[in-house]
Amino acid sequence: MARIAVVAGDGIGPEVVAQARKVIDAVLPGVDATGYDLGAARWHRTGEVLPDSVLAELAGHDAILLGAVGDPTVPPGVLERGLLLKLRFAFDQYVNLRPSRLWPGVGGPLASVKPGEVDLVVVREGTEGLYAGAGGALHRGTPAEIATEESLNTRYGVERVIRDAFARASRRERRKVTLVHKTNVLTHAGSLWARAFEAVAAEYPDVTTEYQHVDAAAMFLVTQPQRYDVVVTDNLFGDILTDIAAAVTGGIGLAASGSINPERAYPSMFEPVHGSAPDIAGRGVADPVAAVLSAALLLDQLGHADAAARVTAAVGAELAGRTPGVALRTEEVGDRLAGYATS
Amino acid sequence: MARIAVVAGDGIGPEVVAQARKVIDAVLPGVDATGYDLGAARWHRTGEVLPDSVLAELAGHDAILLGAVGDPTVPPGVLERGLLLKLRFAFDQYVNLRPSRLWPGVGGPLASVKPGEVDLVVVREGTEGLYAGAGGALHRGTPAEIATEESLNTRYGVERVIRDAFARASRRERRKVTLVHKTNVLTHAGSLWARAFEAVAAEYPDVTTEYQHVDAAAMFLVTQPQRYDVVVTDNLFGDILTDIAAAVTGGIGLAASGSINPERAYPSMFEPVHGSAPDIAGRGVADPVAAVLSAALLLDQLGHADAAARVTAAVGAELAGRTPGVALRTEEVGDRLAGYATS
Ligand SMILES: CC(C)[C@H](C(=O)O)[C@@H](O)C(=O)O
Ligand SMILES: CC(C)[C@H](C(=O)O)[C@@H](O)C(=O)O
Repeated sequence: MARIAVVAGDGIGPEVVAQARKVIDAVLPGVDATGYDLGAARWHRTGEVLPDSVLAELAGHDAILLGAVGDPTVPPGVLERGLLLKLRFAFDQYVNLRPSRLWPGVGGPLASVKPGEVDLVVVREGTEGLYAGAGGALHRGTPAEIATEESLNTRYGVERVIRDAFARASRRERRKVTLVHKTNVLTHAGSLWARAFEAVAAEYPDVTTEYQHVDAAAMFLVTQPQRYDVVVTDNLFGDILTDIAAAVTGGIGLAASGSINPERAYPSMFEPVHGSAPDIAGRGVADPVAAVLSAALLLDQLGHADAAARVTAAVGAELAGRTPGVALRTEEVGDRLAGYATS
Repeated sequence: MARIAVVAGDGIGPEVVAQARKVIDAVLPGVDATGYDLGAARWHRTGEVLPDSVLAELAGHDAILLGAVGDPTVPPGVLERGLLLKLRFAFDQYVNLRPSRLWPGVGGPLASVKPGEVDLVVVREGTEGLYAGAGGALHRGTPAEIATEESLNTRYGVERVIRDAFARASRRERRKVTLVHKTNVLTHAGSLWARAFEAVAAEYPDVTTEYQHVDAAAMFLVTQPQRYDVVVTDNLFGDILTDIAAAVTGGIGLAASGSINPERAYPSMFEPVHGSAPDIAGRGVADPVAAVLSAALLLDQLGHADAAARVTAAVGAELAGRTPGVALRTEEVGDRLAGYATS
């Protein structure tokens, strides 16, 4: 039976994760879940972000379910670099998977896009690029200060994530992969990405390909999100594009993500894209859908495609049945989802 | 009298630039304009992108009006790095100014945003960051290849563009500046930007400030573009955010930009954000509004605020009078704009 580490985290994290666990238990009884206390609260209490001993324990699990970490009182970077990115890098989670669908029942912001028309997934590279942490500063705090950030890209790292994107596309209906980069300005990394993309594309003759500069892709995600099927891109571009994709499909309140090590050499990690939302924490009004959809990605990654599909369908039923303007209760949504998923 | 260099360029460039010149001539008769043949066509013919002698001649002008350069047959980077970016860097055009308005008469893609509600300007840094051209590759073409791109940020360069953004904000009605970066991941450059921002903000106590991560800003530009007044950000983030801002206000067909050296030590350059659109070139159907709005920015920068305001108002009249679905003729739009601007 699957062993899952649960990092509920801060703010609304524990509230939404409880519903995700409820739904997992409903579709796959007997999952062995262990909670880990990490995030802003622990940092405030102990000064620790992610002790090595905890990292080692997490490594023994099949997957990690994470709610949200962070809080405005923690300096920027502490939890991001020390916890989230640390896990992505330590566990070689090179596929950052972020599906976006415009669900029936959800009023997206775009006047001309109808529910059901958008169904895309961004395969964001998760272990390289500007997230590598390479860079520094000189003459800090003086008028002569310089600060650098370096994007590191390896053929190894780029090719493996592109290969994952093509494999996913070949299992989808439209079988199309869009590479997004900025080859006309970032010529070195851009050329590496473009050549790796071409090489992998040659192995998938039945998959259609296109290339777009990141600025154009950002624009087309707003004007024609329907055109995308699978999008593959680097770490930073993926960070930005997935928030746009979330925005045009009803907001990050519904957006799920998986940080995946496809080889299962390390645990993959699944989390809603939203943050800890301290402003609404503790009131039982957070929407658990993103956490539950993240649980569906988790189930799928662990080989329980059926259970995953039932959870996804439950979300579809829940969203289609919502009345705009009616406030939701986190617990009740979780109960309904568990019900739909098992009926 | 002002001396302007005109680089009409490729595709629809010459068509839209002709209208921009027509409008300039109407509001400010006697401008001395010299054409320069640069772009894809010249490169194909001669192999030259921007000869030093031409660069020296351009330097003798007060401003450059550019249509569009490029064409799918030119390898990526050749004209971007060799011409556009070369001019931005050589002429120290550190303020890349990109206003976005949702004009009455223009149907934007967002269901809940009404014409007149969006009026923002992005002040994008133009001479540093990932556009500096720093980076390289090793073991190119082998499985061991690595490619790097380096973002270079100086206190000097960051502070001066932030100062420009605050100066602009203090002349606007809402007096608000939003800094966009990714301080939680790009900690070195992010810290430099944040500290410079704070220091300049202290000089403008009547300007409201906020900070957003680039992924959040990309999202809010889609869900609440009304919230922005002046946005200041780095070169690459600005590239992406301005295309989103253009998309939510009716498309890059209407988006103008200026690459400005505020000290006027070098000529500033004004160009529509759209490209050369080879698919519709030569048919007289391109919308010249973005080129004409770029001409308005040019007039403003050269100290002709009144003439600039008349051109901007003319665009407002033109857009308000358009009937959706009716095809436009480039020449006729230019004639109408010249008429509105002088009536
Ligand atoms: C919190 C931050 C480090 C993270 C990222 O930039 O990847 C977040 O924005 C995300 O998209 O998961
Ligand atoms: C053509 C390209 C170099 C340019 C940029 O990236 O700055 C363009 O996208 C722009 O926004 O002006």
